[in-house]
Amino acid sequence: MNTNNFRRIVIVGTGQLAGHLASSFKIAGYSSVQIIGRDPKKTKLFAQRFNFDFAVSFDDIDSDADLIVLAVSDDSIDEVIAKLPYHKGICVHTSGSKSLDVFGSKFEHFGVFYPLQTFTEGRIINFREIPVLVEANNKYSHDMLISIAKSMSDYVYELNSDERRKLHLSAVFVSNFVNALFTMGNDILNDTKLPFKILKPLIIETMDKAFESGPDNAQTGPAKRGDMGTIQSHLALLSNKPEIATLYSLFSTYINNKYNDKTNEQL
Amino acid sequence: MNTNNFRRIVIVGTGQLAGHLASSFKIAGYSSVQIIGRDPKKTKLFAQRFNFDFAVSFDDIDSDADLIVLAVSDDSIDEVIAKLPYHKGICVHTSGSKSLDVFGSKFEHFGVFYPLQTFTEGRIINFREIPVLVEANNKYSHDMLISIAKSMSDYVYELNSDERRKLHLSAVFVSNFVNALFTMGNDILNDTKLPFKILKPLIIETMDKAFESGPDNAQTGPAKRGDMGTIQSHLALLSNKPEIATLYSLFSTYINNKYNDKTNEQL
Repeated sequence: MNTNNFRRIVIVGTGQLAGHLASSFKIAGYSSVQIIGRDPKKTKLFAQRFNFDFAVSFDDIDSDADLIVLAVSDDSIDEVIAKLPYHKGICVHTSGSKSLDVFGSKFEHFGVFYPLQTFTEGRIINFREIPVLVEANNKYSHDMLISIAKSMSDYVYELNSDERRKLHLSAVFVSNFVNALFTMGNDILNDTKLPFKILKPLIIETMDKAFESGPDNAQTGPAKRGDMGTIQSHLALLSNKPEIATLYSLFSTYINNKYNDKTNEQL
Repeated sequence: MNTNNFRRIVIVGTGQLAGHLASSFKIAGYSSVQIIGRDPKKTKLFAQRFNFDFAVSFDDIDSDADLIVLAVSDDSIDEVIAKLPYHKGICVHTSGSKSLDVFGSKFEHFGVFYPLQTFTEGRIINFREIPVLVEANNKYSHDMLISIAKSMSDYVYELNSDERRKLHLSAVFVSNFVNALFTMGNDILNDTKLPFKILKPLIIETMDKAFESGPDNAQTGPAKRGDMGTIQSHLALLSNKPEIATLYSLFSTYINNKYNDKTNEQL
């Protein structure tokens, strides 16, 4: 028996994350979901996609909702909390970097519901595989949030604000900065007319290896080998890209220091 | 009909790449393969794994071989070429960063056979999916190398030495440096007791997105959004890791400059 349809949920926001949450709530069997957005046309269209209710003012918020989810940008969280009327349901934000403290003493029940993923328009994502990090201010909030999170994802963890901020920082390295390295690799490749996809088997193997043996054991390359000849020849190729050349040197020094304690020579 | 067993091949080396090449030659139907290594015991064991011949001196090299493959480290290529007796077969090296010129005028037929992959002990790799980059000094070498490469891989490209060096540089960014970012993400995560594998769905989605829409379009994160509050809070978390903090700042400046031309503020 699916008991999720007895729980009432409000999603504040109509962006990427709001869309993925709405879709995941629908799949998990929540039938009473209200979408709140500023733009009446956009909000209505958004709600209609899932056959959910909608509102464009906080005054019309479902007063019996068990959960209010703020799926808004980090910069807007403080402002939205200030404008929200008092509500007896649990209010959560969805940010990796914002603390639980942002709720102050406004609500009795509050928490954080942080899905660890990069959300992009039009991409279908299986929410069940996305880790959800939960933090709560009391036992009632805790039990409810864990129960809702588990109805949506197979990977639910409890984390305090400090740990969540570190997880978010880690995610910036392995996602945003990894993608920036992909753009640099792609720029270098543009000089050769080879397609970016030629790198795919290498990138997949790099990732698989890191997860199988741990990234520390998986490191390879000229800097790991201390192959100064190749490093110098690469830096020469980057002479017209000083920003990327600086990153190349820093990475090579980092890797060389980590794996070859004997040589501390600047690369 | 498999005609590969009429071709004779010599592999110089007994390391990771030599192992993957031997395995791939075996799968592609080459039955006359000779392994040459310095260490008699290791070389014999290596050859026995594939039921291939072996030798420990260049004097015993198969004089009728069509192809000699130097699967040795970049640093040893010049030395091995100097020691090799004259041979009428095609001699190739397997390096991404070394030029075709390293062969000088020693042989009539020579070239490069560069498999774009990171090879690690004990990992099974499907060679058919690995791009092979071929360069040759004349038409005979060219036709033979393309034919052999295509018998082993579905992704054979011709590339001159300059282009191959750029491809190798690009590979260092998207593989070696990506793995270094994984080690940094892992180090940051170690403070939270979360396992590295919690990042897997995020990393897979980051990779898939880059290949689907191109890395330039796939960029997300605080630096892309110009979210200075999050960036400052992340830098504070890295105050006891100055090397990683410097990389964080450089990446953020690079991304911010690339996507937000209006703000050139140093991050």
